[in-house]
Amino acid sequence: MKTTKLYDEAGLRTFALVMDKGDDPFAEIVDFARREDLTGAALTAIGGFRSVTIGYFDPDLGDYRDNRFDEQLEVLSMIGDIATKDGEPALHAHVVLGRKTYATIGGHLRSADVFPTLEVVVNETPAHLRKRVDPKTGLALLALDRTS
Amino acid sequence: MKTTKLYDEAGLRTFALVMDKGDDPFAEIVDFARREDLTGAALTAIGGFRSVTIGYFDPDLGDYRDNRFDEQLEVLSMIGDIATKDGEPALHAHVVLGRKTYATIGGHLRSADVFPTLEVVVNETPAHLRKRVDPKTGLALLALDRTS
Amino acid sequence: MKTTKLYDEAGLRTFALVMDKGDDPFAEIVDFARREDLTGAALTAIGGFRSVTIGYFDPDLGDYRDNRFDEQLEVLSMIGDIATKDGEPALHAHVVLGRKTYATIGGHLRSADVFPTLEVVVNETPAHLRKRVDPKTGLALLALDRTS
Repeated sequence: MKTTKLYDEAGLRTFALVMDKGDDPFAEIVDFARREDLTGAALTAIGGFRSVTIGYFDPDLGDYRDNRFDEQLEVLSMIGDIATKDGEPALHAHVVLGRKTYATIGGHLRSADVFPTLEVVVNETPAHLRKRVDPKTGLALLALDRTS
Repeated sequence: MKTTKLYDEAGLRTFALVMDKGDDPFAEIVDFARREDLTGAALTAIGGFRSVTIGYFDPDLGDYRDNRFDEQLEVLSMIGDIATKDGEPALHAHVVLGRKTYATIGGHLRSADVFPTLEVVVNETPAHLRKRVDPKTGLALLALDRTS
Repeated sequence: MKTTKLYDEAGLRTFALVMDKGDDPFAEIVDFARREDLTGAALTAIGGFRSVTIGYFDPDLGDYRDNRFDEQLEVLSMIGDIATKDGEPALHAHVVLGRKTYATIGGHLRSADVFPTLEVVVNETPAHLRKRVDPKTGLALLALDRTS
């Protein structure tokens, strides 16, 4: 992965991350957040995967059902946010993927194998975002302190 | 819904909105825009719905055909903008939704029932965005005054 | 196409582009980038197309396989970036499109015919983004100079 800081003024940082063949975007983005001390950020990405594991939250299970797809897929949309959970960076990202037939699949991103590239734009949010476990579902959800 | 202001400098405001189980994101975002006096903004979101009504613009009808889906869906992508129409906030948002089979559906967002959460990032645009009814289609479209 | 500058401070410019019926967003955005001297930007869009040509990168071919769809489609998500290649603006955009059945298709955007509108938000990144041909795949990929 190569990275560059596109902007750094008035408390705002924007980064471009360009993944290489074989990179796992989930692991790379979490490592990057740790290195840059990112405690709150929003990101979008496009590119390609040659395999991916995605999840679907099944309310009957009360958990995610994961599935792996081993095929070349266009990453049509990847939208996510970076927060912290128990002091560690936590990435939450959802993907929409295009198949050879142009049909699409998608889910909650678990891991992926980039091919040939993935272009990610990360916009830091100066406020710290924190995740907390939701007692009803057991999921780690964004916890804001102010209600409106 | 809980909200927090992530940034407020140099004429730019960024907000995070975290919806609760049972919230309708369409109504919540419009109410939020009214409270915060948002007259122009762009937003993205990910999360989950347990039901949703989405529309497809059918040029033969000259109108939207709406359909309701009652099933747990991953919100893979929600992209939208906030403008004003006749002085009131107007939200335009499109969603891509992931089913249990990982297949995806999508359309113009009418209303939804959030479960278990929806994480929305709203970036205010200092310029006021206005919608005006397009005489040819009857749709309210963004009206910019400058042509380029 | 109509355009407006939403923001221009601290080295950051944000634009709204609203396409008219019949505009090709690919050509319009490249022309706009040339006129405004945009050498690095990220964009998102929603709207509708009445026809589109999209590509799928087929690793067996080592190239894109393009297909044209002649039908009214909701543009559920368009995510892209603007860089330069050989001194000229280069747009890379992926789209997810909603059909009459609410099923979705998508791919690498080649060209499209807007109907009834397409609302694009373009965020300039002050740093210059450059594309370089990747010798392994023959594709023009974002080239960052710093490795991390």
